[in-house]
Amino acid sequence: MTDAKIPSLLSLLTPIARELDALPAGRPAPAACLMRLNANENPFPLPSIVMRSAIAALERQYLYPEHDNITLREAAAAAYGMSADRVMAGNGSSELLSLIYRAFLAPGDSIAMLSPGFSFNRKLASLQGAQFIEVRGNELDSLPIDSFLFGPARHAKFILLANPNNPTGAFVPVAEIERLVAKYDRLVVLDEAYIDFAPENGLHLVNRYSNLLILRTFSKSYATAGIRIGFAFGHPELIGRLRNIQNMFNMNVIGHAVGMSVLSNRRAYDENHSHIKHERQRVSGALSEFGFSVIPSHANFLLARVPAGRDGKWWQSALERQGILVAFFPDDGLEDCIRVSIGTRNQMDPFLEAVDKIRRGADSS
Amino acid sequence: MTDAKIPSLLSLLTPIARELDALPAGRPAPAACLMRLNANENPFPLPSIVMRSAIAALERQYLYPEHDNITLREAAAAAYGMSADRVMAGNGSSELLSLIYRAFLAPGDSIAMLSPGFSFNRKLASLQGAQFIEVRGNELDSLPIDSFLFGPARHAKFILLANPNNPTGAFVPVAEIERLVAKYDRLVVLDEAYIDFAPENGLHLVNRYSNLLILRTFSKSYATAGIRIGFAFGHPELIGRLRNIQNMFNMNVIGHAVGMSVLSNRRAYDENHSHIKHERQRVSGALSEFGFSVIPSHANFLLARVPAGRDGKWWQSALERQGILVAFFPDDGLEDCIRVSIGTRNQMDPFLEAVDKIRRGADSS
Repeated sequence: MTDAKIPSLLSLLTPIARELDALPAGRPAPAACLMRLNANENPFPLPSIVMRSAIAALERQYLYPEHDNITLREAAAAAYGMSADRVMAGNGSSELLSLIYRAFLAPGDSIAMLSPGFSFNRKLASLQGAQFIEVRGNELDSLPIDSFLFGPARHAKFILLANPNNPTGAFVPVAEIERLVAKYDRLVVLDEAYIDFAPENGLHLVNRYSNLLILRTFSKSYATAGIRIGFAFGHPELIGRLRNIQNMFNMNVIGHAVGMSVLSNRRAYDENHSHIKHERQRVSGALSEFGFSVIPSHANFLLARVPAGRDGKWWQSALERQGILVAFFPDDGLEDCIRVSIGTRNQMDPFLEAVDKIRRGADSS
Repeated sequence: MTDAKIPSLLSLLTPIARELDALPAGRPAPAACLMRLNANENPFPLPSIVMRSAIAALERQYLYPEHDNITLREAAAAAYGMSADRVMAGNGSSELLSLIYRAFLAPGDSIAMLSPGFSFNRKLASLQGAQFIEVRGNELDSLPIDSFLFGPARHAKFILLANPNNPTGAFVPVAEIERLVAKYDRLVVLDEAYIDFAPENGLHLVNRYSNLLILRTFSKSYATAGIRIGFAFGHPELIGRLRNIQNMFNMNVIGHAVGMSVLSNRRAYDENHSHIKHERQRVSGALSEFGFSVIPSHANFLLARVPAGRDGKWWQSALERQGILVAFFPDDGLEDCIRVSIGTRNQMDPFLEAVDKIRRGADSS
């Protein structure tokens, strides 16, 4: 009885992209004993003042969150030097990215992403029935502007960039981003998820160009990946559209309170950021000595080409056997690379020891 | 410079429903000193065991939430007696409702809602470019089944019901719901947001009928409106589609932890539910004595027709001047009604005193 109606029921309902109709495999959570250096998390505790605001918010658990995140948007606007109608708050920047696709793309449209980039975008484009175009970046510190303007991406409804980029960690000077935005008459979506580990940021461009949306997340630099706090900045007409299709009560009261408190206490993270930049330098040097070729990174991770003879998958598996998770991106010519998140010294020391042990074993095997 | 590109930029991007393109007004949050009896919140603190799990989760703030909410879905499946592939978890049931519209409706489709109902659905239909059909329920304790099967709603892709209904509080026996689901070959979406204050629930029907999706929220009966915890239950094929389009990391680690803890400690809320049902009875009786006509409610609120001579708007304003917020629904023939949430005795006593004071003033004015 329970399945009889399913075929006719599904045929009546809107079809969705074929590759999406299968059940997800239900990737199991990694065992708690593994060290996660695969998701660019920032393994520091909250500053105590932020933690206190989170606990205080738990006492308001029975009240619906604030409509449209008004005070959080106002606080972010004040912190970043723009008007509140240029700011929206998201349940992580992943929610905001998803809203951008839904607000601005119809089936048959196309979007272009600088490649290699964040693969989640491919799924978002597919959900919207849009064509996904990858534009190869050939230089680490410049953009393929002519490809965006005149290549297959020229009809894209928007371009997606990340700066620093993921998974490379490469950083493009903000003047180069501005050059693209100024020449382009369509929308540029710039994901600055890792910007707090980089030398400069592009947020001031939002007041200057109407065809730019900038995304920020507190997951990386403010150690709140589990809380889900993101922001989008842009022209009020664009932000207004996104706010209009955003679901009500998208952030819970903890996300709201932690977001407010982080905005007021960003200096409390200075030591965290210094530590990560210092460890990034130290781990990069050590990996180079071990025969890896490391891309200069301006993020809280390193993309490293493994020593000749093995590929990234082999290193990923070998490290997992040592209890350490790192990321591997088999596409985009990155078969020989692993990406390792930069955490505390207490994480990076065992990581380097494991790498050293594995490479000695690989040499002798 | 900042606005020059906007007209051409917006013309290039996907149009969205005209009524949605205006900026939202940015409804300000109510002053903290007001007593909120307008949102059906459950003003009890978390049981201490649940609160401890929330605080413990704050220590995992730097880790991304679990992929696909696997353990939370498994816990809900075990608690409610079904397999985990029939369960999904949402950032409140509002997220799940929104996913249902996106997964199952194309522009030009229609959906039908039992009226009066939850007005947020009108916006969700509009976002999807779908026609929104309201089907009037004429009886409080039965459904207009023939209207759904043969009336203007007969081509709807799905029917939306809430039981108990909002804003009436009316309850339809589960056998009546089953009668509709069995006769209908399309999808029925049943929102059981208020079911823990009612005599019986329909969750067992999910194992029996493939054309039924049931929504639950922990906002009302488990006092977590600010945390955002909701569930959808249904046939694996339907749930699988919804999971496939759900954004990653939709619930934060606090929502996940509180959801797990509530599922393990539902009995800790027995006193809460008894209190609310008792206060509902007491307030209903008192309002009747004051000349209100109260619909028998099976939810944590009362819909009350105000005494002749004034309308609901007048009463809403008069109560707000006394520091008490109640809800008012000018559509659907409810101009003469207010809806008041049932909270603690410490809230309901001042509410009744205010009503008494206002009605004496109204009599003498």
